[in-house]
Amino acid sequence: MNESQPVFEAPICPLPLRHDDTIVIGHGSGGKMTHDLIKNVFHTHFHNNYLDQGNDFASVPMPGPNGRLSISTDGHIVSPLLFPGGDIGRLAICGTVNDMSMSGATPLYITASFIMEEGLSVQTLEKIVISMKTAAEEAGVQIIAGDTKVVEKGKGDGLFISTAGIGWIPAQIQIGGNQAQAGDAILLSGSIGDHGIAVLSARGDLGVVVQIESDVAPLNHLIQSVLKVAPHTHVLRDPTRGGLATTLNEIAQQSKFGIQVFEEQIPIRQPVQAACDLLGFDPLYIANEGKVIVIVPQTEKEAALHAMQASPYGEDAIEIGNVTTSHPGRVILKTSLGTNRILDMMAGEMLPRIC
Amino acid sequence: MNESQPVFEAPICPLPLRHDDTIVIGHGSGGKMTHDLIKNVFHTHFHNNYLDQGNDFASVPMPGPNGRLSISTDGHIVSPLLFPGGDIGRLAICGTVNDMSMSGATPLYITASFIMEEGLSVQTLEKIVISMKTAAEEAGVQIIAGDTKVVEKGKGDGLFISTAGIGWIPAQIQIGGNQAQAGDAILLSGSIGDHGIAVLSARGDLGVVVQIESDVAPLNHLIQSVLKVAPHTHVLRDPTRGGLATTLNEIAQQSKFGIQVFEEQIPIRQPVQAACDLLGFDPLYIANEGKVIVIVPQTEKEAALHAMQASPYGEDAIEIGNVTTSHPGRVILKTSLGTNRILDMMAGEMLPRIC
Repeated sequence: MNESQPVFEAPICPLPLRHDDTIVIGHGSGGKMTHDLIKNVFHTHFHNNYLDQGNDFASVPMPGPNGRLSISTDGHIVSPLLFPGGDIGRLAICGTVNDMSMSGATPLYITASFIMEEGLSVQTLEKIVISMKTAAEEAGVQIIAGDTKVVEKGKGDGLFISTAGIGWIPAQIQIGGNQAQAGDAILLSGSIGDHGIAVLSARGDLGVVVQIESDVAPLNHLIQSVLKVAPHTHVLRDPTRGGLATTLNEIAQQSKFGIQVFEEQIPIRQPVQAACDLLGFDPLYIANEGKVIVIVPQTEKEAALHAMQASPYGEDAIEIGNVTTSHPGRVILKTSLGTNRILDMMAGEMLPRIC
Repeated sequence: MNESQPVFEAPICPLPLRHDDTIVIGHGSGGKMTHDLIKNVFHTHFHNNYLDQGNDFASVPMPGPNGRLSISTDGHIVSPLLFPGGDIGRLAICGTVNDMSMSGATPLYITASFIMEEGLSVQTLEKIVISMKTAAEEAGVQIIAGDTKVVEKGKGDGLFISTAGIGWIPAQIQIGGNQAQAGDAILLSGSIGDHGIAVLSARGDLGVVVQIESDVAPLNHLIQSVLKVAPHTHVLRDPTRGGLATTLNEIAQQSKFGIQVFEEQIPIRQPVQAACDLLGFDPLYIANEGKVIVIVPQTEKEAALHAMQASPYGEDAIEIGNVTTSHPGRVILKTSLGTNRILDMMAGEMLPRIC
């Protein structure tokens, strides 16, 4: 064992980190540089009673004895890291808040694992961290545990963020893809395809600039207001990767009922439709990050729709179809020409790395 | 909107996936290929009542009303993916189980986010998934939520796994780095440096082959047996990245007491010491993945030590030092020559990508 100073001394990391600094391998060591990065970037923005304890775990209370936990996780690899209407940080928080909210839960806690590529600018990292903080505040969740790792240049792509969420489901709520019932109305909170096309446009892959912003948003407040007036809501699901068509297929398969939706009812913004026409994409398969499908009994349809429309993220909410006993497990699109089209699940990859 | 078949059809993915298949971008689409991969690789091995529901969240019960949640997260970027004594899958489960256990919690649930690089072999992925299942069974935790993403070749490094864990802390337990008290005994569950040197050896970075296996192991059963006989345990901490020296520094800083440890007491296996001598590393800074530091009042020291020694992962458990009122916030190593050496936190990166 060495009795002199340790031989692995690393360059001293300036304190505080400057905005023109970049991430180096030493920031992932678990040693002083990691501690400095956590203190100067993450702790500065995220600090709360749980994170401040500095343990490898967060110890948190539960809101009450009668209920269940809602737990979800998501990895985020969107490229580019920043795009019109959002960034990977807002996406990571909203994606996990929304996954939890789809159980009818009140989202409470978020964990975040950062895998950074050597060379990531600290300025970009901090911008993303602040964006996470802002989104978490809007949703009313606390970021209570985190982890940072660094990979060599060329072994990652700037930044990946994996989040997990923990929420609380009151005892009486039973929501899930398998709860859909024949006759239920299918509501959609607004226009589809905005997120996927915004990210694609930011990558320069369209060849033209599309004036569209991502819809990335936390939907928990919208959903809570729906549940207040439509307590028998059967399904909540956000049409993310794979788009509306794939998500409806998942629900049809889980519930073993059929689904029919009306093409004319589905809101699509003009720039999204134009970009899709240009590229041969179908907006029904393009990812959304701030939309929700709500499936409710007909008796609670109007109340749910009004609650959605009263939210800033649901102004364009509309009924798009219904659950049927015919063609169980399948989704049928009633086209504007009056024909039926089978909407299948997305097969391969259409737009890689949009979330 | 297209009324014909969607234009983005991808090559049909053979069902089931074969072992000579590799991951392609389409496996991250959220569509059919993603579903097939999840069904054939992840679901086959991980399936349980929660995952089987197929929602984006898991809804789980709590064991009781009186207690708190212990929540932690970790990103895993170890290279290579497979190493003597373990792999990234066992590491991901054990790392998160251990983080939760350090709160005195009973680990219950794990989430896993997989970020795969295009070209990862399905055979390797399945080997890792099975290893996660085995480790989870040993620890008695359930993998209840997961997410898969794929990045292009050259934008990742085979596989990164980020896990989060949710455990349950009974109401009476108060454990944390800030709970250490002057006079407390510091116990260590066994030899240090095994994991870091095993991974380094697997990378071929040593120039020689070292006969050492990683110590990667779930420590929750060992810890529960300690807590049964030493209910006033103040601190539990696993010396992972940054090694024993960095972890002791964290505890000294959190508790605002000093720590002294005795060099002669610290168990180091001969091949680890030899590799460190060769490379000029200090084993006190090398990562462990199956060791725990237990800090207890002197009155419970013997009971805690015997409980550790009775566990298969704590046979070599030993007292290595104590908590002091002198030099608050600092760690002093009493060397075998009788001199004092200040053990600082690790500065930069010594062994990148060992966890």
